[in-house]
Formats: sequence, C-alpha cells, structure tokens
Amino acid sequence: MYCFDTKIRVRYGETDRMGYLYYGNYPEYFEVARTEMIRTLGMNYREMEDQGIILPVRSLYIDYQQPALYDEVLVVRSCLKSMPEVKLDIDYEILNERNLLLCRGNTVLVFVDAKTRKLRRAPEFFLEAVRAYF
Amino acid sequence: MYCFDTKIRVRYGETDRMGYLYYGNYPEYFEVARTEMIRTLGMNYREMEDQGIILPVRSLYIDYQQPALYDEVLVVRSCLKSMPEVKLDIDYEILNERNLLLCRGNTVLVFVDAKTRKLRRAPEFFLEAVRAYF
Amino acid sequence: MYCFDTKIRVRYGETDRMGYLYYGNYPEYFEVARTEMIRTLGMNYREMEDQGIILPVRSLYIDYQQPALYDEVLVVRSCLKSMPEVKLDIDYEILNERNLLLCRGNTVLVFVDAKTRKLRRAPEFFLEAVRAYF
Amino acid sequence: MYCFDTKIRVRYGETDRMGYLYYGNYPEYFEVARTEMIRTLGMNYREMEDQGIILPVRSLYIDYQQPALYDEVLVVRSCLKSMPEVKLDIDYEILNERNLLLCRGNTVLVFVDAKTRKLRRAPEFFLEAVRAYF
Repeated sequence: MYCFDTKIRVRYGETDRMGYLYYGNYPEYFEVARTEMIRTLGMNYREMEDQGIILPVRSLYIDYQQPALYDEVLVVRSCLKSMPEVKLDIDYEILNERNLLLCRGNTVLVFVDAKTRKLRRAPEFFLEAVRAYF
Repeated sequence: MYCFDTKIRVRYGETDRMGYLYYGNYPEYFEVARTEMIRTLGMNYREMEDQGIILPVRSLYIDYQQPALYDEVLVVRSCLKSMPEVKLDIDYEILNERNLLLCRGNTVLVFVDAKTRKLRRAPEFFLEAVRAYF
Repeated sequence: MYCFDTKIRVRYGETDRMGYLYYGNYPEYFEVARTEMIRTLGMNYREMEDQGIILPVRSLYIDYQQPALYDEVLVVRSCLKSMPEVKLDIDYEILNERNLLLCRGNTVLVFVDAKTRKLRRAPEFFLEAVRAYF
Repeated sequence: MYCFDTKIRVRYGETDRMGYLYYGNYPEYFEVARTEMIRTLGMNYREMEDQGIILPVRSLYIDYQQPALYDEVLVVRSCLKSMPEVKLDIDYEILNERNLLLCRGNTVLVFVDAKTRKLRRAPEFFLEAVRAYF
C-alpha cells in the first residue's frame, strides 16, 4: 500500500447554502489528492496524458460522515491499494483540522489509450515506480 | 417506486481536457434530477429548507460506463426506491441522446433538523406525498 | 442587434454559504446563454469546434446588482451587439422571476484557429447567419 | 497599496475541452487570492462573516491574455488599491510558471450587514489592519 496526505483549504465557492462543502466537490478533492500522490511517486499525470494514456474514472464511492466547513484546511489521504496493473484502485479519507474523520471514499480509474480509447495495461514506468510498495 | 426523467445539457465549463463531462460534475446532475423529481411530487426542496429541514447527502455511488460529451442533452433518471421514512434512497441512470446508458448511481440523503443538526424523521407531508407510490 | 433569452434554474451546488448564487458561477450562465443564442441562429458551437475553430473568451465584465437565490428560474438575456467579423461582443442581463434585474455583463470572444492557435476572421457561414440582424 | 502572491495549481476538473483553465474558474482563483491576502493582514474572512459582516462582490472584470494549462502552478497576485472604507477594490494578475502574464482582473466588494443586508462601512479593526499600507 502507498499513502499520501494532501492539504486542501475549502474555498468559498465550494460551499453551499447549508454552509458546508458541497457534496459534489469531494470528487475534485480526491482528484487533487491522487494527482499529488502520483507526483510523489515520481510520475506526472499530465505527462502521462501527453504520452497518449488517459485515466478515466470508472467508479466513485463516498461515505459522508461529517460536514467540511468553509476555510478549513482538510487533509485528504489517498492510498493506492494494490499494484495498478490495469486499474488504479484508490481509497480516500478526509480529516479536518481537529483530526475528525469527515468522509471515506474510493475511486477506480482505468488506463486507456487516448487514440483508440481502448483499455490497456499500465505503462511499464508506472509499474516500476510503485513496485517497491507492494 | 417513483421515477422521473430530467433533461440536462452538458455545459462547456463542465467538460474537462479529455473532452468529457468531468466525473466530479455527475453529483450535481443527480442533485438537479432529484430536485425535479421531488418537485413533481408536489414538494419543494427549498421550502423544506425554509421550514427547517435540511437533507445532507450521506453516501454517493457512481458507476461510470460511457463518457458524456459536450452539448449533449442527457436524460437523468432518478428513482425513489422506498418509503422515505428517515432517508431518501435514490437510484440514478444517465442516458445520452442515442439512449446509451452512460452511468448508474445512487445517493442516500437523511432528514436533519436545521437548528439542532440532528437526524429526524421525514415530515408527514413528505410521506403523504409519496405514499401512493409504495 | 440580436437578442435571445435563456432560462436557467439555480442549482444547490451553485449557491454559497451566503445562500446566493456564487459570483463565480455567472460566467457559466453567460456561456449557456450565448450557446443557446448561437443555436437559435442555426449554428452550433460544438460543430464549429469540430471544424477547427475555437472561441476563447478575451474579456469578461459583470456588474452584480442583486443576488440570485437557490431554485429561482433566471432569465439570461444575451445580445450580440455588432457583426462578429473578428470577435463576438455580447451583452448580458440576468433577471429573476419577479423581473428584477440582477446583473449586467459583457463578454468578448475571438475566433481562433484550433491548430495554429492564431486569430482568424469569423467563418463565412457564421457571418451569413447573422447578417440579417445588422 | 498592499499586494500578496498566492500559488494555485490548476485542477483537472477546472480545465475544459480546449485543454485550458475554463474562463469561469478565474473568479474563484481571485477569491482564493484575496482571502489569503486578507489573512496575511491578520484578519480572517470567515470570522468577519461570523461577526455578521458579509462581503458580496459588486463587480468583476477579467482581461484574458494567455491560457492557463492543466497542472501549472499559477501565481495569483492581488493588490488592495486603496483604503477600504466602504468597499474592497482589488486588482489581480495571474502569471504562469515561466512568469508570463496570463490575465489581469479586478473585483469590487462591499461591506454588508448580514442581518439587514444593508451597506455599511468597513469594521474599525479592518481599517486599522490596513492603515499602514496607505
């Protein structure tokens, strides 16, 4: 398993009239967190796309437990659960400044050839980069 | 069961650099669809909030199958699955103009007292409105 | 001058903790309105992009006068002010259900060749479509 | 004058199908930048709201010059131009990693009493905090 913590401050425009972080903004927080996690592995999501590999999301799950509030600095923990042979299976937790668990989540992304739009295996450099953790 | 179809056209700002509807925008489409579903039952989500009942989302699930494209008019089908005694359990399907299934989803919302922020039962007028369908 | 009115209902996720439509969501409403205006002229923004012409925004102005509220159906009026030889100069007004003026705005978009990313003149079919109005 | 630089990385969900930061996401970047600027002055926008003062935006102007790209770390410079007696008049510039100017902008915010929703003067502690710079 490989985990990484990213900090994100809740923007005003991301709140809703309940005064909470809108439930629809959590997937973007997950995106930011996994992008940073991948960066710490020495890879770059943008470069991967430039090389013709895209990573569409296949499934998303979020279990909302406590609201996130405006201007709070949240910790978004993302954990790569297994060797990403054909998919990226990532678990998330969001904690607030008082270390309270706000939500758990999961996304599954697949490797797709940008031209053919067909499924493919993870590129070798990607597998190489994460091998040490599994 | 009670189902309702809402049409939503994909906005430019909702697409991403893959050219697809960004995965993080689907929850807002679900929100629009369930709001319209509730309206067809003779109720109004805004008025419910004005009466001191809020409906935070407790869980979200999305299974993405095909991408949604810019400017497409999507059908977002939302189905209330059971009597909403203490929660709203809603299934969703999104179909494109060629009737292709793009995704399936689910949200669970709970009834919360806006002042105390504690769980509560659905208001009687809400149960009354949906009783015929279950 | 050519004007067209588009109706947009304010989504929950578009509000902020003031309970208003977040100021940063107005540009997307303008985008929806001008896309529909262009459609009524017999053209399609998506097809224009598919033909290699993109229309990036060069400037945006918004004068916010009254807040827009959750669930209100707004009228977004967009008016093409002059022959779009090299740019689309569009004025906007947003009115609420009681016909109260909420804001005025303006955007200027330019025609750009998608490959070279250089400025270009409007395509002839575009000029043809709007000529009757100027 | 008082200026402050905030860094913001462009998220995937903030790009559009042109591959650029969507024009409608710039206002939120301005919001983040001015919030951080106010924080460096020893104040806190959230606390101000909790004390019953809200700061709705009255006008927005953006002059887009070059596109911002996915994953770039942008510098958003915000400059408070004058003593904020009754309004916050702020200029912005966004620069990319190669120090290229991407856009200029301006917002005017006004101080409003959250209860009465009427205009009011800036609170004394706010004026005190910025006096040294004007």
